[in-house]
Amino acid sequence: MEDYSQRAAFPEQIVKQLGDLGCFGPTIPNNYGGGGLDYISYGLMMQELERGDSGVRSTASVQGSLVMYPIYAYGSEEQKQKYLPKLASGEWLGCFGLTEPDHGSDPAGMLTNFKADGDDVILNGSKMWISNAPFAQIAVVWAKDESGEVYGLIVERGMEGFSTPLTHNKWSLRASATGELVFDNVRIPKENILPGVKGLKGPLGCLSKARYGIAWGVIGAAMDCYNTALRYAKERIQFGKPIASFQLQQKNLQK
Amino acid sequence: MEDYSQRAAFPEQIVKQLGDLGCFGPTIPNNYGGGGLDYISYGLMMQELERGDSGVRSTASVQGSLVMYPIYAYGSEEQKQKYLPKLASGEWLGCFGLTEPDHGSDPAGMLTNFKADGDDVILNGSKMWISNAPFAQIAVVWAKDESGEVYGLIVERGMEGFSTPLTHNKWSLRASATGELVFDNVRIPKENILPGVKGLKGPLGCLSKARYGIAWGVIGAAMDCYNTALRYAKERIQFGKPIASFQLQQKNLQK
Amino acid sequence: MEDYSQRAAFPEQIVKQLGDLGCFGPTIPNNYGGGGLDYISYGLMMQELERGDSGVRSTASVQGSLVMYPIYAYGSEEQKQKYLPKLASGEWLGCFGLTEPDHGSDPAGMLTNFKADGDDVILNGSKMWISNAPFAQIAVVWAKDESGEVYGLIVERGMEGFSTPLTHNKWSLRASATGELVFDNVRIPKENILPGVKGLKGPLGCLSKARYGIAWGVIGAAMDCYNTALRYAKERIQFGKPIASFQLQQKNLQK
Amino acid sequence: MEDYSQRAAFPEQIVKQLGDLGCFGPTIPNNYGGGGLDYISYGLMMQELERGDSGVRSTASVQGSLVMYPIYAYGSEEQKQKYLPKLASGEWLGCFGLTEPDHGSDPAGMLTNFKADGDDVILNGSKMWISNAPFAQIAVVWAKDESGEVYGLIVERGMEGFSTPLTHNKWSLRASATGELVFDNVRIPKENILPGVKGLKGPLGCLSKARYGIAWGVIGAAMDCYNTALRYAKERIQFGKPIASFQLQQKNLQK
Repeated sequence: MEDYSQRAAFPEQIVKQLGDLGCFGPTIPNNYGGGGLDYISYGLMMQELERGDSGVRSTASVQGSLVMYPIYAYGSEEQKQKYLPKLASGEWLGCFGLTEPDHGSDPAGMLTNFKADGDDVILNGSKMWISNAPFAQIAVVWAKDESGEVYGLIVERGMEGFSTPLTHNKWSLRASATGELVFDNVRIPKENILPGVKGLKGPLGCLSKARYGIAWGVIGAAMDCYNTALRYAKERIQFGKPIASFQLQQKNLQK
Repeated sequence: MEDYSQRAAFPEQIVKQLGDLGCFGPTIPNNYGGGGLDYISYGLMMQELERGDSGVRSTASVQGSLVMYPIYAYGSEEQKQKYLPKLASGEWLGCFGLTEPDHGSDPAGMLTNFKADGDDVILNGSKMWISNAPFAQIAVVWAKDESGEVYGLIVERGMEGFSTPLTHNKWSLRASATGELVFDNVRIPKENILPGVKGLKGPLGCLSKARYGIAWGVIGAAMDCYNTALRYAKERIQFGKPIASFQLQQKNLQK
Repeated sequence: MEDYSQRAAFPEQIVKQLGDLGCFGPTIPNNYGGGGLDYISYGLMMQELERGDSGVRSTASVQGSLVMYPIYAYGSEEQKQKYLPKLASGEWLGCFGLTEPDHGSDPAGMLTNFKADGDDVILNGSKMWISNAPFAQIAVVWAKDESGEVYGLIVERGMEGFSTPLTHNKWSLRASATGELVFDNVRIPKENILPGVKGLKGPLGCLSKARYGIAWGVIGAAMDCYNTALRYAKERIQFGKPIASFQLQQKNLQK
Repeated sequence: MEDYSQRAAFPEQIVKQLGDLGCFGPTIPNNYGGGGLDYISYGLMMQELERGDSGVRSTASVQGSLVMYPIYAYGSEEQKQKYLPKLASGEWLGCFGLTEPDHGSDPAGMLTNFKADGDDVILNGSKMWISNAPFAQIAVVWAKDESGEVYGLIVERGMEGFSTPLTHNKWSLRASATGELVFDNVRIPKENILPGVKGLKGPLGCLSKARYGIAWGVIGAAMDCYNTALRYAKERIQFGKPIASFQLQQKNLQK
């Protein structure tokens, strides 16, 4: 019997496959490993992915719009060259840390913070409900500096004090792994700070990009729901005929 | 880590406790072990049970309205004396077999059937989506005789050819166990047939009784949902104040 | 051809008839001409009136809950004896002046006001969307005194400077007349002020009473809508049979 | 005081103006007086007209899609040359007769019929709820021949036995005139029969064309509703500020 509690592990080969298909950052220019495509192309990809599974689309949205996009839009040339090609190919998986347990709708209240210490900063705090977290090699994390200004930092798996506990027993989006990001005096080089943006417009700009793809995605999910329901209504026999032959079913399924 | 796939096992002691509380067949007369109460009392019990958990209410609905009720209403005096007290006390758990894989909305199409064989009948067929099935001592099963007439039979666990496979990985009502009933040439004494009813009005009458309790139950579930949401809205702080102080939350929670 | 613009005139004989039927102030004690009945009786009357016409129920709601009720609850003994029997019998029609053009949801912002002048007060201002206004003998008007406190005053038709222009071309509740109340230096004896209440709890208490009857009324309107639709669905033949025989109609009309 | 019962008269000069603007049959080729435009252009016209008034859009829909379209698609060359330019310019107004009192959803049940009589046919029956009828110079009427087959006939005002009584006291679409078409032994030359179609696919094809424009129209109506509501929410002050500053209004008006 399958143990659903283990379902959250997102197989590495699927991430690789999504990269091969060009689903990670399709609008990022070719020279950074992206597809150089327009937003309609990106939308159609998200539609098709979610026609199959919402969790797979979610993984691609996070990678493309919440990890690659801020590095591309706000990152230094070195950051772009270091991270974008690996993320585009699916060699690396990334995640995005904004939400905190007590600060969801109002991210301005975040407590996660960092202090300068020589050429590094020391990061403390935690993030919650983070898609891709348990299997990500890097996290784009939003935190406040000593003056309370919000900046984005690229945190890498393996940095001391950084852990990503898995969220168990989710009821939905189970093909996507969810977890926390915990920062316990994590030392991060200053060169990992995204230089191009400060303030909440940084993470909120990423969310706007992601929502664009999510909007296409829900159409894909709806297409599959409709087709599944329609097929079943034609196959399911009750009272001696397909239930699709009853007006009440026809009303539900009319286009 | 908890294995949710095993959650379906409904603990014996809870069945016993529901019996002790008088939640099984509260409207059945005292001399058969019931509570001798009116239907308002029955409704209030179902409301309170579902305020806690829908699956627990479901277990009680099946036992009272779908197992005890048909035995009380359609059974012989011997059947009533043999089964009702044990069901009322929670010593025995019962289930109700009507739905078949291809015959849900239209139970008249059922295929499960029995043939006379001396003092016995031989029962064949299967039932699906049966609450309480995996842990029930008896099943009230609806099947067609050789002329196609529907009768109720009391099938007991242990009869040869009778099995109750557990339905795994349900997403809802997980405190209630669901399973199938499979009858492979099960030999059943004719005295186990309910003498007082023939035709679909038998099982449909049981469903009407159960729906009465379910209607009370959903009010209980709604009460708990409302109170849980209200409490959270008062506790959850965002933008520096409880979210209950925002008009949009107030509209959702207005009575 | 009928001229609908004249429809707003509410015939005197209907007011008289509502009085004879006991529909004006049914919960007011007998010694003031009321019915001395309970609130269920009042509710049933409103239900039956609105089953016929929403405008007729509206007329009765205003008379009973917005005119008789404040005089009964907040008036002096002399006011009760002078006005309640005539209002109960339908000899007089009354109206209720709270809403102003710029102050609907927020009546605390009202501009209508009065100033003391010897044994009288001088009332200025205007009220809008006032049911019964064009044909009422008296108006219970809410206005601010010089210190900004809200009081109720009984204004009588014929007082100099008091006019009640008719609102033309309403699209709904056309059996009920609607108008304005205009007060241009109207001199009113101090004995016409309701002594028993000050502040907005006075008019808001009346609205609560009225809403009770309106809630019963809408049930009456719904009953008639349902019965009218059901009857038509049974009578209307399309595709060779009553439209009530189609599932989609049955869904709309199921109880 | 304005008498609304007279409002139904659709002024001749507005029909002329709609013609001048090119709103009648914009997709009909230029050589028949049409605009020779595509369907997006047609849609945008309907949207803008209904942004102003649904009744005006309705008049244009009938003229273009229900009168000019069937003459263009099913008419003879002579019919096209005789009628289309005058309809396109607004010199003539047309209407469309399909619905009968007892045959709305199911037009196949229509009773209106014609019998051959030499070079003419004799038309009997009546049509109901016909937009533009009271002021139309011609009517495209659908009726059954002696074998029960449906054909379209062009009936002209002035033919003996043809009358178009006005429907009074409509509550909606009051800028559009509605009426009946009554045929009492109306003698019509056979050359007025549309030669290109028989059966219900004739009128139903017209309705499909009209619905295309109606779909654009409702967007126009919705645009105006939204803008009107938004403007009012910004202007209307209650509790000392525009009601647009309250969350509940913002939710209603969010895009």
